[in-house]
Amino acid sequence: MLIAKGAGGPRIQEIIDLCRDLSVPVRFEPRDTLDRVSKGVPHQGVVAFGVAHAFVELSEVAEDAQLLVVLDGVEDPHNLGAIIRTAHAAGANAVIVPERRAAPLTETVERAAAGALEYLPVARVTNVTQALENLKQRGYWIYGLDERGTEPYDEVEYAEPTVIVLGGEGKGIHQGVQKHCDVLLKIPMAGQVSSLNVSVAAGVVLFELRRRLGNSKIP
Amino acid sequence: MLIAKGAGGPRIQEIIDLCRDLSVPVRFEPRDTLDRVSKGVPHQGVVAFGVAHAFVELSEVAEDAQLLVVLDGVEDPHNLGAIIRTAHAAGANAVIVPERRAAPLTETVERAAAGALEYLPVARVTNVTQALENLKQRGYWIYGLDERGTEPYDEVEYAEPTVIVLGGEGKGIHQGVQKHCDVLLKIPMAGQVSSLNVSVAAGVVLFELRRRLGNSKIP
Repeated sequence: MLIAKGAGGPRIQEIIDLCRDLSVPVRFEPRDTLDRVSKGVPHQGVVAFGVAHAFVELSEVAEDAQLLVVLDGVEDPHNLGAIIRTAHAAGANAVIVPERRAAPLTETVERAAAGALEYLPVARVTNVTQALENLKQRGYWIYGLDERGTEPYDEVEYAEPTVIVLGGEGKGIHQGVQKHCDVLLKIPMAGQVSSLNVSVAAGVVLFELRRRLGNSKIP
Repeated sequence: MLIAKGAGGPRIQEIIDLCRDLSVPVRFEPRDTLDRVSKGVPHQGVVAFGVAHAFVELSEVAEDAQLLVVLDGVEDPHNLGAIIRTAHAAGANAVIVPERRAAPLTETVERAAAGALEYLPVARVTNVTQALENLKQRGYWIYGLDERGTEPYDEVEYAEPTVIVLGGEGKGIHQGVQKHCDVLLKIPMAGQVSSLNVSVAAGVVLFELRRRLGNSKIP
């Protein structure tokens, strides 16, 4: 926490006291320094450095989860954020993304997630297929959603604990990843367009799962 | 259709013949003119002017529809496009938007709709509440989806023909419009976030409808 030299009053003192209680380091700096680090955003004499949203490890989220969402190459940050928001609202325990070809947890993702990033852990893995094999060994059932899927999402029995794999925009789930899915789901569609936006598709399948499992089973 | 003076060959001739067959006016202009109207996009000697996506009238879509989607103030063009794409895929017959506070059918909307704008008519109305009253008189049942809704979307019986009303980002359905809904739906959610992205919410409800009505009833 940076406090401008010369700033004072009961509200600043309250901030300083709270920082002391929580062992947050406080530094007093010239107002110029605060202007510089806040990049022109009005700061009223106080600038705090928050930790950006950090990824967690697969092992941290795979322990006790009932429902995990794995993204195989979702590159659009709006979609990533909307999926995190949707997954949280549907009762999923975490979202898992690959290190490569995936959007980082930027401010755009955060905004699109509408606060859900504060609650839903996002794990990053080096390799999606290895992660799926790891999850299988832990007893998870892997359901991939893809245009080329064969089983209607609304007719399948979902075994628990459940992993839903979603593919990237336009490309779907990579062939290599598809092979590691127990079931390949499709969303039967009307009309002339062969796919949904990936965050909409996530919503359709995850809320079908939520409906099936009942509100009582997923908190 | 503009053809550059001096351009020729069987492919250009085929275009000219097709235009004649379809009564599309053809004009021969200097290559400079084509460069100018194509704004630097490579044109190979041919530039066609397509009709932008036009709105239709409510009466044109309300005649025989089974499922209509009314948007009460969706302002984000990505969301509008994604909803058009989703509505088409769920078997809806049209989307209805208000004249004010709504995104026009720009290229961004078109891209997000991923081709669905070619197939799904979008009607524009001056007043949403008047449109809903018009639809009620035609026998439609009006279901509004809103955070403050009372009936879980997955427990309600949907009467046909059906209208689904979706509210704008953040604000939901306007109070005045809510009063004209027969039923106010909610999506029961887990977690700490109180709403979904509006296009995701559209997907959840419209595909629940599609699942209920069965693939046979909605073409």
